Order: sequence, then C-alpha cells, then structure tokens
Amino acid sequence: EPGDHAHSVEGSGWWNIPYPESFDVKLLPKPQDHIRIDGNQFVDQQGQPFFFRGLNIADPDKLVRDGQWSQALFKEIADWGANTIRIPVHPIAWRQKGKQWYFDRLDEAVIWANSYDIYLILDWHSIGNVEDGFFQHPMYQTSLVETRNFWADMALRYRDVPTMAVYELFNEPTVNYMGVANGLGDIEWDDWLAFLESNIDLIRAYDDKVIPLVAGFNWAYDLRPFAKAPVRRPNVAYAAHPYPMKAQPKQRTKANMFKAWEQVWGFMADDYPIIATEIGWVQADGYGAHVPVIDDGSYGPMFTEYANNKGLSWCVWVFDPDWGPTMIHDWQFTPTEQGAFFKQVMQQQ
Amino acid sequence: EPGDHAHSVEGSGWWNIPYPESFDVKLLPKPQDHIRIDGNQFVDQQGQPFFFRGLNIADPDKLVRDGQWSQALFKEIADWGANTIRIPVHPIAWRQKGKQWYFDRLDEAVIWANSYDIYLILDWHSIGNVEDGFFQHPMYQTSLVETRNFWADMALRYRDVPTMAVYELFNEPTVNYMGVANGLGDIEWDDWLAFLESNIDLIRAYDDKVIPLVAGFNWAYDLRPFAKAPVRRPNVAYAAHPYPMKAQPKQRTKANMFKAWEQVWGFMADDYPIIATEIGWVQADGYGAHVPVIDDGSYGPMFTEYANNKGLSWCVWVFDPDWGPTMIHDWQFTPTEQGAFFKQVMQQQ
Amino acid sequence: EPGDHAHSVEGSGWWNIPYPESFDVKLLPKPQDHIRIDGNQFVDQQGQPFFFRGLNIADPDKLVRDGQWSQALFKEIADWGANTIRIPVHPIAWRQKGKQWYFDRLDEAVIWANSYDIYLILDWHSIGNVEDGFFQHPMYQTSLVETRNFWADMALRYRDVPTMAVYELFNEPTVNYMGVANGLGDIEWDDWLAFLESNIDLIRAYDDKVIPLVAGFNWAYDLRPFAKAPVRRPNVAYAAHPYPMKAQPKQRTKANMFKAWEQVWGFMADDYPIIATEIGWVQADGYGAHVPVIDDGSYGPMFTEYANNKGLSWCVWVFDPDWGPTMIHDWQFTPTEQGAFFKQVMQQQ
Ligand SMILES: [Mg+2]
Ligand SMILES: [Mg+2]
Ligand SMILES: [Mg+2]
Ligand SMILES: [Mg+2]
Ligand SMILES: [Mg+2]
Repeated sequence: EPGDHAHSVEGSGWWNIPYPESFDVKLLPKPQDHIRIDGNQFVDQQGQPFFFRGLNIADPDKLVRDGQWSQALFKEIADWGANTIRIPVHPIAWRQKGKQWYFDRLDEAVIWANSYDIYLILDWHSIGNVEDGFFQHPMYQTSLVETRNFWADMALRYRDVPTMAVYELFNEPTVNYMGVANGLGDIEWDDWLAFLESNIDLIRAYDDKVIPLVAGFNWAYDLRPFAKAPVRRPNVAYAAHPYPMKAQPKQRTKANMFKAWEQVWGFMADDYPIIATEIGWVQADGYGAHVPVIDDGSYGPMFTEYANNKGLSWCVWVFDPDWGPTMIHDWQFTPTEQGAFFKQVMQQQ
Repeated sequence: EPGDHAHSVEGSGWWNIPYPESFDVKLLPKPQDHIRIDGNQFVDQQGQPFFFRGLNIADPDKLVRDGQWSQALFKEIADWGANTIRIPVHPIAWRQKGKQWYFDRLDEAVIWANSYDIYLILDWHSIGNVEDGFFQHPMYQTSLVETRNFWADMALRYRDVPTMAVYELFNEPTVNYMGVANGLGDIEWDDWLAFLESNIDLIRAYDDKVIPLVAGFNWAYDLRPFAKAPVRRPNVAYAAHPYPMKAQPKQRTKANMFKAWEQVWGFMADDYPIIATEIGWVQADGYGAHVPVIDDGSYGPMFTEYANNKGLSWCVWVFDPDWGPTMIHDWQFTPTEQGAFFKQVMQQQ
Repeated sequence: EPGDHAHSVEGSGWWNIPYPESFDVKLLPKPQDHIRIDGNQFVDQQGQPFFFRGLNIADPDKLVRDGQWSQALFKEIADWGANTIRIPVHPIAWRQKGKQWYFDRLDEAVIWANSYDIYLILDWHSIGNVEDGFFQHPMYQTSLVETRNFWADMALRYRDVPTMAVYELFNEPTVNYMGVANGLGDIEWDDWLAFLESNIDLIRAYDDKVIPLVAGFNWAYDLRPFAKAPVRRPNVAYAAHPYPMKAQPKQRTKANMFKAWEQVWGFMADDYPIIATEIGWVQADGYGAHVPVIDDGSYGPMFTEYANNKGLSWCVWVFDPDWGPTMIHDWQFTPTEQGAFFKQVMQQQ
C-alpha cells in the first residue's frame, strides 16, 4: 500500500519520474542455482559445496570508456575458468553516471554472466572510514546515507536474481584516515557492526536470498574483532583482502605465512564462509607495483594451497591492464605472471 | 546580537547575500484571527471552536508550470466553500526552485488566502523514513538537516502571519522502506518523537503561535503509539490520512468503519485536535485509482458524519485534475464525484 | 600502507585524480620557529613567551576578486607591525572555489607570511550551530562532515609548516539559531566538546605541532562552561571575540569592563593561552557600525591594557575597507580610527 497520491498519467514533471522496478528474472538466458550458506560453506541448490573463484574487473564506468564493456569480456573471463566476477562500483562514478546508468550496466552484466553460469559479487568500492567521512581518495568518498541508498536500490533491483549472488557492503574499511595519518582514528567496533547490520537489515527487507559479505578494518584484512563480536545476523559471509605484504612474519616461509593468515583472518573460516575478494601480486619492478601487492611470485601457489586447505572462495585483482596488480598486459588478454598462474588454477577447478 | 562582521555596504559577493527577512504582516489585505488550540479543539480569537475544512492543491511548482497559480484559483476554492488550503511542498521541487522562489509563491498564497479569509496548512510533502534516508519516490527524498532548514526558514518567514496557521512537519512517515519492502524497517518511536519535538522547538524559536501538526507511521494513519508516548510539547495537533482502504473491517458497515477509525487514530480526538489532512476517494475505474483511495462513494458521507461526531478538521486530496484522487476533471473546475460531494459539504458549513 | 589498487599510470578518469600532497616546507623562504604551548603561554623554540598580535584579512576569495591578494598586502601588514594574520575561510567560498583553489592561495599565504616572519591563524569562518545545521547567514552554512574534511585536508596539507601556526576550529558557535530566534536552542555542552575533540584528534592524526584553537558559545565570547568541562586534549588554546558591546557593566568604567571580561572569558588565561582572534570597534556613525562593535574609542586602550596584564594574544577585525569594523578606509591603506590605534600598538611591540 504505497499511499502515493502525487502522480499523473502523463507529463514530464518530477511527479512523473517512474517508480523503481525490479529486474525481470525471465530475461535470464539460463537457469542458475541460488547459492546459499550452510554452516561455514557456500552450497548450491543440491546442497553441494560451492566455491566462488574468479576475478575482479574494473568499474563498469571505466570499461565503457575503454570500449571494453561487452559480452565478449565476460566470455573471455569464462574461458579463463572463472565462475565469479566481482564488480566494483566506485562512489564517485555512481554519482557521476547515476542510478539508471548503473542499473542498465548491471542488467547487462547479469545477463552476460548468467549465460556463462558465472556469479556476480557486487562491491561498493569505497576505502576509508564512512562513519567519520574520511576516504583514501576522492573516488572513494561516500556517506552513510548514500551507502544505504545504494544497497536499497540494488536489493530492490536484483531480488530473486540468482546471478547476483553476493553484496560486498563496503570494500575496504579503515580506521586511520587515508593511510597517510599517524595511525590514530576513532571508529568503534560497535559502530562498525551497527553499520553492517543495518545495511543487512535493509537488504533483507527486499531480498532474503542474496549473501551479504562483510569486512574488517585494515583495508579488509583484520577479522579478529569479529571473533568476539560477530555480525548478529544469519547467513552472512566474511571478506578478506590478504595481499602478499599484509602478513609480515619474521621469516617468510609458507608455514609462517599460513600461521599469520590464520591468526588474523583465516580462523574465521572454521565457522563462516570466507571470500578473499581481492588477492594478487606483482613483481617489485612490475606495472602498478605498490604496497601491499609486491611479491616474488611465491604468493600464488602459497595462497591457493591455503585456500584449498580452508575451503576459501577468492577473486583475483584485477582483469584490467591499467589497474594493478593486473592479470592482463593488454586488451588482447595477454596474461601477466599472476594472470597466467590464476588462469591455470581456475581452468583446473 | 548577530555578531556579524563580514558584510559590506555594496557589492555582489556572497558576503552581500541579504539576511533572511520575515513576511510583512502589513501586506495582508484583511484582518484575520490567529487560530489556536484550546484543549482538544481549535478556537478563534473569540474562543469559539474552529474547524479547518478545505482541500489540498498541488505543489506550487506544478501549478506554476500549468499556468494555474493565480488568485483566481484561490477565489474558485473560496467559492467551493473551503476555509483551508493545504499546500504540499515536495522536497525535490524545493531544491530545484530554491528557497526564494518558494518564499515568493507562499507570500502570494498568504495574500490571496487572507483576502478570502482562508487559512493555509503548509505541508513538507515527503513520504518515507527520514531517519534512515529512504523514501517512496525520488520526489520525496530529503534529510533531517534539509527538513530542519525548511522549517527554520518558514518559521522565520511567516511568524506573526495568522493566515499561515498550521505547519505539517512531515506528510507521511513510514517505517518499512518505499512500500515495496517485506515489511521490515527500523525506526524507533523515540527517534520519531525526538524528530518531531526538535522541529517543534525549532519552529517555536521563531513563532509561538503557529500550530505544529504531527503524524504517525503507516503513511500518517496510525496514531496509536502517541497514546502511550505523545509529543511532549504543548499546543500540537495530530494529523491522519484516513483514505477509504486504510480501514479494513471484515464487514464494511458504517459502524465497523467508525470503530476501526476510532481504534487506530480517531481516539486521539478526545484529547487533541485532529486534522485529517488527506481524505478522498475515486471509483475503481476512475482516474488515478490506486490503493488506498478506491471506494464506491459511500466513504464521503461516512467520513463527514464521523468528522462531525468527533469535531475533526479535514482537507480533501486533491484540487488538481492531474493528480489523484482528484476533485476536478479539468481546469474549468468541473467537479468529479468526490468533488461534487465535498463542494456541497463545504458550501453548507 | 594505502592498499590502493585502482590507479593507472596515465589517463584522465577519476581513478587518476592525484592523491593529496603536503606543502613542501623547503619552499619556505626563511627559517621560522614552531610556536608551541607551555602552560598558559605560547613560546618560541627558545622557550621565550610569544604573543600572536596582528589582524584579520578578508577571505582570500574576496581579496582575489578585489585584486588585492598579493605579497604587497602581506608586506603592508608587516609594515603595520603585525606578527600574525588570521585568514577566515567561509564555507560558501570553500565550496564555490574548491579545495585546490584554497590550497593554492594558502600556499601563497604561507610563503608570503613566512618571508616577513608572520604567523597564520587559519579560521573556519562559520557562525551558528553546526550540530543542528543552523547558521546566521548562507555564507556560514556548513556541516559536521564538511568541517571535518576541511580540517583533514588542511592538517595534511600544512603539517610541519611552522608558519601555519594555529587552526581555529569554528569561528563563532552559537546556541540559538541565527541570532534572530527567541533565545531557544538545543546544543549540549557535551556535544560541543565532542565536536571540538574529534576535530582535534583528526588534526593530530596528521600534525602534532599545530595549535588547535577552540571557542565557546555566544559568538565565541563565553568560555565559562570550559571552566568545569575543558577540552580533554593537551596543547589547546582558547579563543575569545570580546567586541566592545559584549560586556555590559552597569557603569562602563575600565575596572568594570576588566571585571566583566574576567568573569566570562579572561579567567581562562590563568590556565590556558588565549587568543582574542576578533577585537575592534567603530564609532556609532562609522562605516559598518553594528552591534556589538560600536564604541566611543575608549575600547582600544582599555582592551590592550587588559591584554598586556593577562598576556593575551589578539587579532584586530578587519584589514579590509569593505568589511567592518575596518582598520583601513581604502586600498591605499589609510588607517581608520581603530586602524591608527592598533597600528601604533603593533609597531611598538
Ligand atoms: Mg540474488
Ligand atoms: Mg565575527
Ligand atoms: Mg502563523
Ligand atoms: Mg583494494
Ligand atoms: Mg604548522
């Protein structure tokens, strides 16, 4: 019972702006399972374990500008063996392009992904402290209200769409501002939990199947506070961005890396499903090398072994030759070092 | 003691933007009583009971676009017997047109209304959950700060103006988002009360005579929470929007409708003055028919009998041929079914 | 460890907007002491007492429009004997011109001021109640988030720059709205303290040397609430704007004025350093005369005697012929009454 009175049958006034509509699931080319959570695993409609393993693409806004937003891109990714594409939406682009533009692009992404039985992880790609309004870069600036509106819009738009499987609520939360401050900062864990839970409640008001994915501070690396104070909502998954330089054991052996990962985020996999939504590396002299992604290449086999041990899902950053660490040298999709590695892993899955 | 130093005598910089000014009451063509609250009634300056009974017009922005914003419109409404016009200001139009544009229009409305001894109810026409920032439609989007600024601006502008009699703080509050959600939502009654009271305090800082009008959830239908936790401020009136389909007794007899109304909102009239600021109906096959306004026509006599029994004030929605349920078929003011009915009732009052 | 992945080496997208950078202190023409707080005094690098004594200029935006933003202006001010320039940044101009424009102007101001061994007090020139979003005039409108972002931007930009000595967090806080209301209002002292402290923490995350300067209500006049509840951070100074008409003793003798000042704000100087960042007067028939700046001229010697007794720092309002009370009749810098007085005092310091 909308209770709306201010509309007319025709006309161009603001009172004739259409009401929001949901994506019509009949437009999906193929049947596709709804993935859900069972204990600490994702499972398909038969209850069999499912692992989201794929990659990140750039923001649709960038891909359109580059002339790369097309079904061919999704086909290439399917050929690489990915079953998942994570799509980052940057707040600055969301405001510039507007809601309808992103609906149009995400509608296309849903149809293309579905046609290759790929799942989508939609990522609100901010970095910073949304409570206090500080962000690492202008492209990440958003607000509590804009974030809520984004998720409300998305939850209504894509409810009942199995392809749109995961909503990553906030890409990389940080406490200390912008990464250039002295390490101070003042977000309380309770406030962060309340932020996450209120967005989950909001999404659930529209969609009871989609999987909310939540992160901890230190750029989505540290899940330890959740051990004592987890999200008080069912059917939630946890994110980690365990880039190679995040763990700093004294000796960089595999055992020490596994131990470091286990202590800070991996332990959560015993109780909850985890998706490492950003992993990847580049050599120190490679394109886009920067802290914390520099590695000699041992990271790839090490991480995938740990992921197999723990039953983790993951997405490599990033299938775009301009952003880094990249999987491809160019738009002919020539694999980089990490690109070649993860392509082989994905094709064998 | 403004303590302002940053002004110059001439120039065009932002430091020369004029300070806000109040409407000059000497511009009113006629003397007009200040209406005030006495117990559960409105009374005029002689202490005699007064009932606001009239109608809603569209937003001034729409009427100007349609070429219908003129004293002739107010004269027509006076001829129909209305002693009250409710003016909805939609947040989207408020932002598009700006404060000064609305001041200019409302100054005109005050002068025109006063010349026919009509009172104005100014309505901040949002629908949704302003605490969480969710709204039924883009035209209703606003924020806590914008709402406060609107009322501060209005309270300063129209203080001491008897014609501007009532400020309806927020048209239709809802808990569950946009009316399309699954019924969840999370505004606390204490938060809603705090919102209402803080806006009342703000208005009172400028104007100690105007009557604040407050609503409950379910699109301004449900006043029951106020029974236990009323607004903790004196001289406040309560609003209800009892469209025909809001009450759903098993058998739609007059006695059952009266009982349903009594339980959900009418009971408040025993202690406080009530204005049903939106009432009205249309046949199921009529123009603009939608939930909750569809009725076979029995609603009109039923509601006015109940209003007479209880001493209620009311305004019919809406004196505009494009919006619905409408009172007029066209701008020649040809009455619709409800238009003809309420015209007769108003002319006999 | 910024954790940023979304950048490319070349291109014009939003992902290539440069990251914020700090001002390069090597650009300063001269060495200059960092001024710091020791007990209730400011001291230089040798630990000797230092007094900020100078004047306010207009907003850089106004000065640029008037063709007066130049090193020549700073040289003239140095010739008048000022060791301090307070620069008011008005939120309306900040939004219109943008961050980079102000960085460019303030970079210039830092270099020019440094070349004359002058210190800068940067002033976020709002007047009103930022908690509730009410401001005395459109030029003062801002928000909690915009204010925090302003200070974060400035603190990163000018860290380690001794010339940028003081950050005045919020020019003139008021409780009752806009100075035209009936005296009501609802900001709690705890909320104001929390606002100040959170901005100080934020600034400290970038800069551990700059001096935060905080004010009380009544347009930065009343410091009494701080007596019981001071800012719970070290190395903070207090501001007062003791214009002549703020103290209203029954008989306007020097003794009574000193007593009135002592009771409301001057007492704080026993424990904390104070800067009276706005002082000044004009005759009742002078340019820009308005409450609370009107005086017969006895204010000048009276205030400076009190300031000397108490060891206060101060800045005269305002070195701009258009704003009032002004120190100069014109851009040939012809001194007004107060201009001539304070020029002599500053030149003798
Ligand atoms: Mg879904
Ligand atoms: Mg001032
Ligand atoms: Mg009035
Ligand atoms: Mg990242
Ligand atoms: Mg400094």
